[in-house]
Amino acid sequence: MRDFSQDHRWLSINTATVRKSRGVDLPLPEIIEACVRRGIRAISPWRDQVAAVGLDRIGKLLRETGIELSGYCRGGMLPASTAEGRKTAIDDNRRAIDEAKTLEAPCLVLVVGGLPGALQGQLESKDIRAARADVQDGIGAILDHAKSVGMPLAIEPLHPMYAADRACINTLEQALDVCDALDPGRSGALGVAVDAYHVWWDPDLEREIERAGGSSPSRLFAYHICDWLVPTTDLLTDRGMMGDGVIDLPMLRAWMERAGFRGMHEVEIFSANNRWKRDPDEVLMTVKARHREAS
Amino acid sequence: MRDFSQDHRWLSINTATVRKSRGVDLPLPEIIEACVRRGIRAISPWRDQVAAVGLDRIGKLLRETGIELSGYCRGGMLPASTAEGRKTAIDDNRRAIDEAKTLEAPCLVLVVGGLPGALQGQLESKDIRAARADVQDGIGAILDHAKSVGMPLAIEPLHPMYAADRACINTLEQALDVCDALDPGRSGALGVAVDAYHVWWDPDLEREIERAGGSSPSRLFAYHICDWLVPTTDLLTDRGMMGDGVIDLPMLRAWMERAGFRGMHEVEIFSANNRWKRDPDEVLMTVKARHREAS
Repeated sequence: MRDFSQDHRWLSINTATVRKSRGVDLPLPEIIEACVRRGIRAISPWRDQVAAVGLDRIGKLLRETGIELSGYCRGGMLPASTAEGRKTAIDDNRRAIDEAKTLEAPCLVLVVGGLPGALQGQLESKDIRAARADVQDGIGAILDHAKSVGMPLAIEPLHPMYAADRACINTLEQALDVCDALDPGRSGALGVAVDAYHVWWDPDLEREIERAGGSSPSRLFAYHICDWLVPTTDLLTDRGMMGDGVIDLPMLRAWMERAGFRGMHEVEIFSANNRWKRDPDEVLMTVKARHREAS
Repeated sequence: MRDFSQDHRWLSINTATVRKSRGVDLPLPEIIEACVRRGIRAISPWRDQVAAVGLDRIGKLLRETGIELSGYCRGGMLPASTAEGRKTAIDDNRRAIDEAKTLEAPCLVLVVGGLPGALQGQLESKDIRAARADVQDGIGAILDHAKSVGMPLAIEPLHPMYAADRACINTLEQALDVCDALDPGRSGALGVAVDAYHVWWDPDLEREIERAGGSSPSRLFAYHICDWLVPTTDLLTDRGMMGDGVIDLPMLRAWMERAGFRGMHEVEIFSANNRWKRDPDEVLMTVKARHREAS
């Protein structure tokens, strides 16, 4: 296992972690500046945060500060109840691929989407198998473009409690089955993002991490960490800081490293500041300490 | 498929569904009387509700009213961090088996338990594999007693969002693997409770329902229904009435029936009255209507 006790070179911050400061949305340049101040060398930003400032300006800021990306959030949301809806989603994913390339991200993370209309509160279909077929077809439709620009796609299985509204791919096995179906030759263009919060409960996790890694090139494109709190008081905004919950993060890391993963640990805690009520510098200090102690 | 449009002979009420009336805990005899008034012929009561009134008195009341049981809630909670804790749990499960027998339940439902101490807010271990081993060992330790008194045990996989604190068996496949390990000969003493709320998201669900049924005797001992709401505002007390959520209940029922299941549909909506704020008679009327229309 790598030694994280001395430096933070493998620590990345998903910008959702410090997005809100005392209830106010913090612009991405300020998040980047906070990372620079705290010696954090990588982030994973969200598309809307980039769009709010401008793609070129963010690209310039990243080059100036030397901050790297551990991923780009996010593509996906592919199921739709009409052919037009599916095409709109595919076009939007192509743009996301181009943005990720401009920012020199190592991968575009795909949160694949759930039942059509569910997230908007207007359910259009209860057919989760159809949604899963839309996901596979949709990824198939953008894969050539991703290959042509050299932007790997990382399918992120989400916890089953998000199956209805955010992602109908809910286990690593399912994500890897899609990878095998669309990219049987392991071209390096299609893989997975393993988020401890989403997959820690899975009885097949060790086996599937080994399946994703192992062969060359690996399908392990990203690793996200935080913790599962007991009790969890909100399905979306109550993720825990590493060490505050029940996930055996050192064990998961051991499985990842045994499967050959040597990439970033991206800390993704939705609305951490909802719970912490602190400024981004304090959150980042805590993240650094907990990354040392509890991951 | 059976025709549910004319009668409710296959409808059962898990008493959690009508447990609270306007914030007050309703005693089990009053729940039974409400079922009698509304022509519902079966319930699944909870141990603490039975204990509060007395096992013999409830047994007598069931015989007098002709109300049957679709199951008894519940055994399980087997993992512990000490040998003494594991023994205490096993002894308690033996008593639950005897109570279920006294009440002539068709099965004892097992909510197997999660990480030791998690539910009590005092986590003692993050080792979910050890918890799963405790579960298998614990069920193995009570199986002979269950066989000797003729009380089938139904392992209920719970949604992965309960993996930490309520049940570390989270898929039907996992539950059936335990059944196969402990009861390879399919004696009829060990099977599963399939709860739509817990398993609807599972990409392997159809296959595993077929695996559980099919051969004789079937391992499909119980079928629970309610609905998954979007958004879900509480992890425990925000289950939906059939038809109000995203689960394709007719499809699940078709899979169950194709696998040979012809038993009760047990409606289990935790704290339905939290959302409905109605008296038990009104909840039961709605359950009957929705059972006809949406399951």
